[in-house]
Amino acid sequence: MSTEQKATNITWHEGHITRADRERLNGHRGAVVWFTGLSGSGKSTIARALEEALFERGVRSYVLDGDNIRHGLNKNLGFSPEDRQENIRRIGEVAKLFADAGLVAITAFISPYRADRDQARAINGDDFIEVYVACALEVCESRDPKGLYQKARAGQIPEFTGISAPYEPPLNPELVVDSAALSVPEAVNRVLSLLEERRVIPSAG
Amino acid sequence: MSTEQKATNITWHEGHITRADRERLNGHRGAVVWFTGLSGSGKSTIARALEEALFERGVRSYVLDGDNIRHGLNKNLGFSPEDRQENIRRIGEVAKLFADAGLVAITAFISPYRADRDQARAINGDDFIEVYVACALEVCESRDPKGLYQKARAGQIPEFTGISAPYEPPLNPELVVDSAALSVPEAVNRVLSLLEERRVIPSAG
Repeated sequence: MSTEQKATNITWHEGHITRADRERLNGHRGAVVWFTGLSGSGKSTIARALEEALFERGVRSYVLDGDNIRHGLNKNLGFSPEDRQENIRRIGEVAKLFADAGLVAITAFISPYRADRDQARAINGDDFIEVYVACALEVCESRDPKGLYQKARAGQIPEFTGISAPYEPPLNPELVVDSAALSVPEAVNRVLSLLEERRVIPSAG
Repeated sequence: MSTEQKATNITWHEGHITRADRERLNGHRGAVVWFTGLSGSGKSTIARALEEALFERGVRSYVLDGDNIRHGLNKNLGFSPEDRQENIRRIGEVAKLFADAGLVAITAFISPYRADRDQARAINGDDFIEVYVACALEVCESRDPKGLYQKARAGQIPEFTGISAPYEPPLNPELVVDSAALSVPEAVNRVLSLLEERRVIPSAG
């Protein structure tokens, strides 16, 4: 690269592809849909159903959940308070990268602490859409799809959210979906409507 | 969610959107283009130019570089050997998420250690395309766009790659681009050709 090409460098850097370019190509905006709620509340189910509904509209999204985060990026983190905080911090930062890439990042983690979610909100600014999947502990415990509540009650899982560790409900989430009252498609429609209102995605019309 | 809806859950989970679905929607495959080379070799410039060329073809890509990683996800990492290793590990994991999302992840980090790059390769399997931006130290140092070599020579930056810390060139990279011999567009074309050969992107035709 000669002196001329260095000048070119500057041009490349100044003129490089922006988030707005990517959003134009995709036909929708980037955003972060942050689901929070107890184990068994339905976060993952609703997140996957939202992904499918967005896909059917041609909207690019990506779900970050325990499966792809805890075994990969965050596999060096445990469940101490510091590690839980760092877990959520990294997820917030990765979600930001996806939103910047022009995708709708969908996160499905219990994320029980208000301070941690607020940090993810601070990282993501106006892109952050907190969806509280509200569900009574009794209902979540009766579902217990992975048998975790049973183990927690038996003392086999220390610091299990809702049993032996706190869950701090959001004070001002962008949306609350009551998974005991709404079907999965109904919950998804509430999120889609909010994404339309906020002009993240075009109206279905 | 009633018993019926739990059954629906299972369907949603089994039938959820896959990487192949996302790649079909995008019209290209996900991949990881991992640039490695000395400071001043031209990694970032070529990465940004590649991003632009891909965009012009309608290919979704995202550049991971110091700007969006060191100030975000990896802001709690310094430059100790352990932190450098963790820095590259996290970048490899995030690149994997982007490839899984159906995008061409482009990384532009010195990534001087073979073991760290090999770990990123192991994480990403066949998606991993290592591009060695070869450039003699003297040439990089003569460019010195950020004045870093000058500072390193003055002893103001400890463990600076190429001066006071080693750079281990790839032994079997998928591609070598010699940035002293090739223009930026020429280097980009080499990468595009490789992506076509590997059927990550359709041939320009």
